[in-house]
Amino acid sequence: MDFEEKTLRRTTIFEGNIFKVVVDDVKLPNALGNAKRELVLHRGAVSILAVTPENKLVIVKQYRKAIESISYEIPAGKLEVGENGSELEAAGRELEEETGYSGHLEQIYEFYTAIGFSNEKIKLYLATDLKKVENPRPQDDDEVLEVFELSYQECLEMIAQGKIVDAKTIIAINYFAQHFGGDL
Amino acid sequence: MDFEEKTLRRTTIFEGNIFKVVVDDVKLPNALGNAKRELVLHRGAVSILAVTPENKLVIVKQYRKAIESISYEIPAGKLEVGENGSELEAAGRELEEETGYSGHLEQIYEFYTAIGFSNEKIKLYLATDLKKVENPRPQDDDEVLEVFELSYQECLEMIAQGKIVDAKTIIAINYFAQHFGGDL
Repeated sequence: MDFEEKTLRRTTIFEGNIFKVVVDDVKLPNALGNAKRELVLHRGAVSILAVTPENKLVIVKQYRKAIESISYEIPAGKLEVGENGSELEAAGRELEEETGYSGHLEQIYEFYTAIGFSNEKIKLYLATDLKKVENPRPQDDDEVLEVFELSYQECLEMIAQGKIVDAKTIIAINYFAQHFGGDL
Repeated sequence: MDFEEKTLRRTTIFEGNIFKVVVDDVKLPNALGNAKRELVLHRGAVSILAVTPENKLVIVKQYRKAIESISYEIPAGKLEVGENGSELEAAGRELEEETGYSGHLEQIYEFYTAIGFSNEKIKLYLATDLKKVENPRPQDDDEVLEVFELSYQECLEMIAQGKIVDAKTIIAINYFAQHFGGDL
């Protein structure tokens, strides 16, 4: 059984600042004929599970236009142009900009968020040994953020209340539970 | 501090079969001025953590054009037009089509996959009491799938090997670990 879909033609629909949209005509394997694939191409992003010395998780409150609602999430940010390959640096920058913390960073996961239609890949870092930066880089000028430090139990309550509804944040909270002894 | 971004104008860029792309002009809160938001609007999807009587996870191998690669994932599928509100039924259908199983379904999570630019929401169901359906519905005619039943340990190895790279599948595997006694 063959799996690969060969690209016959790619049509660019939209070149945005955040993503590009293309439609690929593909030849299906096993003589199944042709099909179209609508795709959102994205540079990728980084996100940070930041654990304070008090064993709390740093969570950022923000408005998300895509869902027309407030969302509580771990700190995260898109890679900027040319930043591919220096995700660790990007993670440090986002952590500082969004929370005012610096820390020791190590990658714990990488995953595609919406693999059915997008190549957005998020690298998830664990940040420990957090220290407040004296004069942190300012937040992006189109972002309004509020920062919270929440216990594992508080995070579970926010999932139950529908305040935490973001996949990468759920992955981070579960990692925290497994490695920092949140009660299961 | 105010968070909400008010829509001044929505421009539709693309109306596809899988998603719609719009660019919103928004008024930022707190007199920060205006900004543009590029958004991918999606009907949503369901996915299923199917646990066999042998305590294995049902994993589907398939090609994903978005990443130009093979991917191993839990069964999943997009909601069809008008299917909003009957996600449980959609989950049962996808489970049967992709794996030939039926089972007892209960929702365990719902989350947005790529909240920075898309409203795609996935409901994740747990399927237990699995039974082989005698004449299962056929797979979609543009999908080539192979089904595996993997232990928790095998899933962890596939994450480490970069074969499981999908956010919803990682969420499901962690849920399995916490509730079905995968060793942590």
